[in-house]
Amino acid sequence: MALIVAKFGGTSVASPERIKNVAKRLIAMRERGDEVVAVVSAMGKTTDELMSLANAINTAPPARELDRLLSTGEQVSMTLLAMALEAAGHRAMSFTGRQAGIRTNDFHNKAKIAQVHNDRVKKALEAGYIPVVAGFQGIDELGDITTLGRGGSDTTAVAIAWGIDADVCEIYSDVDGVYTTDPRVAPRARKLDAISYDDMLELSSAGSGVLQSRAVEFARKWNVVIHARSAFSDANGTYIKEDPQMEEAVITGIAHDTSEVKVTIRGVPDSTGVAARVFSALAESMVNVDMIIQNISEDGITDISFTCPEADLGRAESTLDGILSEIGAREYEVDKDIAKVSIVGTGMKSSPGVSAKAFSTLGDDRINILAISTSPIRLSMVVDAAQATQAVQCLHTAFGLDSESVFEETQLSAEEIAAKMQKGR
Amino acid sequence: MALIVAKFGGTSVASPERIKNVAKRLIAMRERGDEVVAVVSAMGKTTDELMSLANAINTAPPARELDRLLSTGEQVSMTLLAMALEAAGHRAMSFTGRQAGIRTNDFHNKAKIAQVHNDRVKKALEAGYIPVVAGFQGIDELGDITTLGRGGSDTTAVAIAWGIDADVCEIYSDVDGVYTTDPRVAPRARKLDAISYDDMLELSSAGSGVLQSRAVEFARKWNVVIHARSAFSDANGTYIKEDPQMEEAVITGIAHDTSEVKVTIRGVPDSTGVAARVFSALAESMVNVDMIIQNISEDGITDISFTCPEADLGRAESTLDGILSEIGAREYEVDKDIAKVSIVGTGMKSSPGVSAKAFSTLGDDRINILAISTSPIRLSMVVDAAQATQAVQCLHTAFGLDSESVFEETQLSAEEIAAKMQKGR
Repeated sequence: MALIVAKFGGTSVASPERIKNVAKRLIAMRERGDEVVAVVSAMGKTTDELMSLANAINTAPPARELDRLLSTGEQVSMTLLAMALEAAGHRAMSFTGRQAGIRTNDFHNKAKIAQVHNDRVKKALEAGYIPVVAGFQGIDELGDITTLGRGGSDTTAVAIAWGIDADVCEIYSDVDGVYTTDPRVAPRARKLDAISYDDMLELSSAGSGVLQSRAVEFARKWNVVIHARSAFSDANGTYIKEDPQMEEAVITGIAHDTSEVKVTIRGVPDSTGVAARVFSALAESMVNVDMIIQNISEDGITDISFTCPEADLGRAESTLDGILSEIGAREYEVDKDIAKVSIVGTGMKSSPGVSAKAFSTLGDDRINILAISTSPIRLSMVVDAAQATQAVQCLHTAFGLDSESVFEETQLSAEEIAAKMQKGR
Repeated sequence: MALIVAKFGGTSVASPERIKNVAKRLIAMRERGDEVVAVVSAMGKTTDELMSLANAINTAPPARELDRLLSTGEQVSMTLLAMALEAAGHRAMSFTGRQAGIRTNDFHNKAKIAQVHNDRVKKALEAGYIPVVAGFQGIDELGDITTLGRGGSDTTAVAIAWGIDADVCEIYSDVDGVYTTDPRVAPRARKLDAISYDDMLELSSAGSGVLQSRAVEFARKWNVVIHARSAFSDANGTYIKEDPQMEEAVITGIAHDTSEVKVTIRGVPDSTGVAARVFSALAESMVNVDMIIQNISEDGITDISFTCPEADLGRAESTLDGILSEIGAREYEVDKDIAKVSIVGTGMKSSPGVSAKAFSTLGDDRINILAISTSPIRLSMVVDAAQATQAVQCLHTAFGLDSESVFEETQLSAEEIAAKMQKGR
């Protein structure tokens, strides 16, 4: 008998039929003797729809009001799931973020959880109810509704799991686990049975969309075991935990991310303080600079390149327009056709040859590396977007990640999985 | 300078465009120096849509969950209106029923307001914000969301008006006021400048759908002045207040209601306790019996007729099926083609001739009266549905209610008004 928090994403609760299926899963857990608390996202595309309703009225909606608006999505799905459980003869009770005791700071639209007081959820469990908690939301000190940012329901689930001391926090989605790389890109991608928090965080921030980074950070901090699994099958997914006791692989997975752009500033005088001026101006404009490459100077003139999310490009361009003449630079150009490919693995710390192997693997395949950045357990390389698939595949093979058969652990075809993953993003 | 509560119904906030129009109206009030608190219903048909979503999952959804589900509709519209006000350069802040201090009992789906604590609304007003309050909802002692029943947003508005001691509670809808009768039925219906609470209550309960009865009851109890007016024009509507100081009309208006049915039980033994048995059984089945007619007995056998809402007919039939043989009655029959026509007026109390005049007016027009019920200020008569329009028209004329010209106070055509009224119900 285990105490389980089970979180279901928007696709899993997108229709009355699917909500009934979620209810069936929860009831099956109860019937095999487990205790369960459900956490739900908003139905399907509800959050996007509410967002466009807001934008039709106010292109810069006040953050406080936007949070209250968006939080209604999960309040709808939580009540419907509770109704489905009751219709199936089980006692259920829904709880808003407020009632589930999710207290946050007042950073509306991306609030951080400050405290968790799950008394009502615990009492409902003791009284034999299946508690259903609205994900994505909490309240601040004023009692105003806050939201935790995109994917925040994962964080809610982990926080509830910690609060009630659950054995595991199961995250159900349309992806059946964490893969060594994106199966759409490398059909020989292999589902991992387990992965460490650190590796998962690097994979998440390097573009793997299975779990929200903040949920994994929270889980690492409070040692909550996550089980990322499919809402559409009973097969085990991937456990994310402190000591996964995996086979001693140096590399856990390959992530790739095509959401960044590369900006190159041409003809910059190579003098003290110029780079600092550029990047502090970008930081002030909230441009999230990822990698920086400064070329070797010729005649006191150099180029500076950096990458940033495409979403930040407009702000980056207007910032550069403002300071180009001030720093004495000639011009800048934008390259959107790039991809960042990242090799992730806690084992890298103790294996010095990873970078060399990665560079030579890409070199053998005539893939040009445009920029490089590293962390102790991650090596990221920017390549031409056109070569991204090839880069992922050859690295996946070179680091011994290929599975024997394609999708051995699922009955779904590669196309079906690809379609599912596409939909889930 | 006045302190105004302005309530907007679902039709008035049905789209982003209409919400922007509501914002403009509120801003116009501010700019002429008034202070204003807005109360909103859910957008358009939202409540119905949420209800059918619930029914797709659970045909008898738990009341607590249903309330939480339905309450999201007003939370969406309140945030959108606040966003629209902010987009127009005004400071606005939305409040849920909870935050607006609407405390209710725990009768989910039709909770009654127990207390009103408007501190946050008052503070927001003082700080220069336009508060926007979600109608229709409150919280019970447990902190669970309750709803006030259909049309409950009117009650919220009146309660807020009382709580902040507003000068007037303006109820904006797609109907431009209270008419002496339904303009669709009698084109010479006249809009009233003012009406007393008592007359309004009788008109409401006799089928006039302009205002929710409970809102009027609350207003009468706490002496809140209501102004029912059009969301689509600046013309004055109808004031509902204690002492309307109207012209001394005996009769204020004629209501009609086609939502009732007549049930006749044939061949009932005329013995003590039979009627009591029938009506206590119906009461136990929650059948809302309106009028009762017992015919003159012949040979110890009689007929008993009663009217009830068509919505209660199923329960009435199964109740009668169960007791028919027990009471020794032969059969029952149902007549759906009836209409209740009511003459309403506080002046009736001191004018003894009203009934006689009504009966003779209908008699002159060969309209048969099937049943009669009275209150001190209302006379209701059941007639054949086919004769209802004629009955309303001839009574309207006979009691001097006809306006000189048709729709003198509006630029809309009779068809447009009829279409609007149809839509608003």
